Amino acid sequence: MTLDAVLNRIDATLPQALERLMDLLRIPSISTDPAYKADCARAADLLVADLASLGFAARAAPTPGHPMVVAHGGQMGGAGKRHILFYGHYDVQPVDPLDLWDRPPFDPEVQDTPKGRVIRARGASDDKGQLMTFIEACRAWRDVHGTLPGKLTIFLEGEEESSSPSLVPFLKANREELSCDLALICDTGLFEGATPAITTMLRGLAKAEFTIRAAFRDLHSGMYGGLAQNPLHLMSRLLAALHDAQGRVQVPGFYDDVDELPDTLRQQWQALAFDHARYLGDVGLSVPAGEQDRTPLEKIWSRPTAEVNGMWGGYTGAGFKTVLPAEAHAKVSFRLVSRQDPDRIIAAFKAWAEAQMPADCEIVWHAENGDPASVMEISDPAFEAARTALTEEWGRPAAFVGAGGSIPVAGYFKSILGMDAMLIGFGRDDDQIHSPNEKYDLESFHKGIRSWARILARIA
Amino acid sequence: MTLDAVLNRIDATLPQALERLMDLLRIPSISTDPAYKADCARAADLLVADLASLGFAARAAPTPGHPMVVAHGGQMGGAGKRHILFYGHYDVQPVDPLDLWDRPPFDPEVQDTPKGRVIRARGASDDKGQLMTFIEACRAWRDVHGTLPGKLTIFLEGEEESSSPSLVPFLKANREELSCDLALICDTGLFEGATPAITTMLRGLAKAEFTIRAAFRDLHSGMYGGLAQNPLHLMSRLLAALHDAQGRVQVPGFYDDVDELPDTLRQQWQALAFDHARYLGDVGLSVPAGEQDRTPLEKIWSRPTAEVNGMWGGYTGAGFKTVLPAEAHAKVSFRLVSRQDPDRIIAAFKAWAEAQMPADCEIVWHAENGDPASVMEISDPAFEAARTALTEEWGRPAAFVGAGGSIPVAGYFKSILGMDAMLIGFGRDDDQIHSPNEKYDLESFHKGIRSWARILARIA
Repeated sequence: MTLDAVLNRIDATLPQALERLMDLLRIPSISTDPAYKADCARAADLLVADLASLGFAARAAPTPGHPMVVAHGGQMGGAGKRHILFYGHYDVQPVDPLDLWDRPPFDPEVQDTPKGRVIRARGASDDKGQLMTFIEACRAWRDVHGTLPGKLTIFLEGEEESSSPSLVPFLKANREELSCDLALICDTGLFEGATPAITTMLRGLAKAEFTIRAAFRDLHSGMYGGLAQNPLHLMSRLLAALHDAQGRVQVPGFYDDVDELPDTLRQQWQALAFDHARYLGDVGLSVPAGEQDRTPLEKIWSRPTAEVNGMWGGYTGAGFKTVLPAEAHAKVSFRLVSRQDPDRIIAAFKAWAEAQMPADCEIVWHAENGDPASVMEISDPAFEAARTALTEEWGRPAAFVGAGGSIPVAGYFKSILGMDAMLIGFGRDDDQIHSPNEKYDLESFHKGIRSWARILARIA
Repeated sequence: MTLDAVLNRIDATLPQALERLMDLLRIPSISTDPAYKADCARAADLLVADLASLGFAARAAPTPGHPMVVAHGGQMGGAGKRHILFYGHYDVQPVDPLDLWDRPPFDPEVQDTPKGRVIRARGASDDKGQLMTFIEACRAWRDVHGTLPGKLTIFLEGEEESSSPSLVPFLKANREELSCDLALICDTGLFEGATPAITTMLRGLAKAEFTIRAAFRDLHSGMYGGLAQNPLHLMSRLLAALHDAQGRVQVPGFYDDVDELPDTLRQQWQALAFDHARYLGDVGLSVPAGEQDRTPLEKIWSRPTAEVNGMWGGYTGAGFKTVLPAEAHAKVSFRLVSRQDPDRIIAAFKAWAEAQMPADCEIVWHAENGDPASVMEISDPAFEAARTALTEEWGRPAAFVGAGGSIPVAGYFKSILGMDAMLIGFGRDDDQIHSPNEKYDLESFHKGIRSWARILARIA
């Protein structure tokens, strides 16, 4: 069988694949630091050359920042069922504090650890190791078949770790060239380090910052305490009223556009047997907060939230100042799901908050913005096909999962290029991405390559 | 009648009294700035010399800071009914911003204004002009009678505007010398600028600063929002729960030791016809907050409060950081009345707050301390006598009033020297104390001197 031949080729050439990853890891492509601009370009060039060697029409496309790698498989992919765009990023996080690294971060090494063999280097997991799983799958396929495993475009960014300033302009300027039928994004992980997962829901975000104004100057609490409005009290009451005792957000209409989880997903999530005690225990907590009638996974993946991210006012220095301040401030954000509209949510929040102010106090609104949730069309058979492929490779049922935070590129692919994305990755929670001693399990690399071969065999 | 002769003498010698005040105002006795140390000593020496000229045994008593002026009338006071201690302070506030002054702050001038003649200089009202009203009353009395108007000790501080660091040690070290039957303190004002007032109640203060701790590090609101405790929510709920909808403090036992206002005081306060709309309007407010079933004067003078003075946590910089912080902080203070014990109030608050924390969060207490309220024994006939004297001088009924803030020296006189104090002063709300262009009305100075003559005639 053709797939078996590809998988065998992957197994046989793993040492060479590892060497190629090492070459990429040796380039300190730190995107946020201008000192590494040439290194970023060098990483892009290395990838362009490698993709060209596989038959891609590849180029490093300039941007005001670091180049984008764009590579089209063209006729090399044969008459694929659908045109697929693969996304990864070749830039990495800074490495400080350097003294917490056990070895130079750009001198990669394969190490034996009690948990297995790992590739230790900055970027090993985020995202060089992950993006190479896809390229190596393409290489093995080509070695066996002489063609690519489908109609492919590969799109690699060099600014993901520095807020992607060029991404949206580039997507808009190259909409036609980059629009495909489906996107594959490899920048996520296995669920709880073991279960292969396809992220199909990403929460959106709406933000508001505001000031409650009372008196036009700070007041002496001896002269005015007990008689004048204290904006810190008003702020406390407002934010306390944001949730009821069951954890439900009290802004009117907040849940109007929130869909219940489909039964199929509910069953998959139940089967994941999420260990929320460990998840909370890892950060020193034990009592699930939030909506009392929802499961922990629903709370972080499929339910909207209202969270106070910052709050301040009055005297905050050393010692005491018995003041009733003139102002109190807060930053509040809402994680959005389903069809919740950021503008509508912010408008409802503003109206609800203003209605609670006494006649002599006011709210001044400073900044708000938002992005809706991304919910992929999992009725597309490619999703189920990928799930089957992952299940076969990893020996345990793969699941469609959610992501509590947003992964902006997935949203842009949908809003700008009009295509859904399957987010599939093989990282583990202990990969220490963004931290010293980042690593990527050799198993993640190896089975990641095999996973893409299986997925592409089914969907491309 | 002997009092009339003294009052006539005061009227006749007002120009000379004013000249003496000017001499004192010319000395820049700014206590908080070491550059003016010699000036503070010079002001003390001038007062010592003046008091000695009246027959007091006066001295400038050294302290680690600025000297205390202590002057005993001794036999010059005759067989007074009671030994009276008078307190004022000769130090003044700094003068910056200097460019907002219309003339040099230590070059005093009598000016005509639409509201009458004023003495313009730093310290004119706070407190040199006020303390001189008492000394000038003594001088006129002596001029007429050859004796002082009673058994008097005068005690003038030079560090009141810099937190009185030497006061408590000095009172403790000289307890026997300074303990009298009653203290007179001249550092307050007329009620609403017109009604003579004796302050007989001063609220106490209890303070607590604390941190609510949840996770041991800041959490990503995408990964943990909706599932993990957010200490900013806990803080909001805690502080919102501090008061009920009627403005009553919800800490158990908070009102246990709060006495209702005696009917005599209630009637006096009603007669004051306090214009709370103007009082709030002056700072841009209009809606009385606090206990809904209490009058505005009760709220600021005779009722205890709980006020949040500072609150902070999470991300407070520019832009957004969607974080669930590990900690939230607050500074809370309680104005105390009647027999409320600061330690008991703080203990009750701590127990109440801790009971509201989920099992995986905790409160860490940083600093707390407090002073009880000062409530003078107005059954002492001296209080009613002084009220009558003030009523006669000012032509409108004098009142026993409260003070929302604390005046520490009154508390120390009670706690260290065991004596009550009558706080009587003649300042007006528009005197601009602590601000540029400080002034003291010539009427305040003149009628202030006359007031003390009348009071001393009745009580000393």
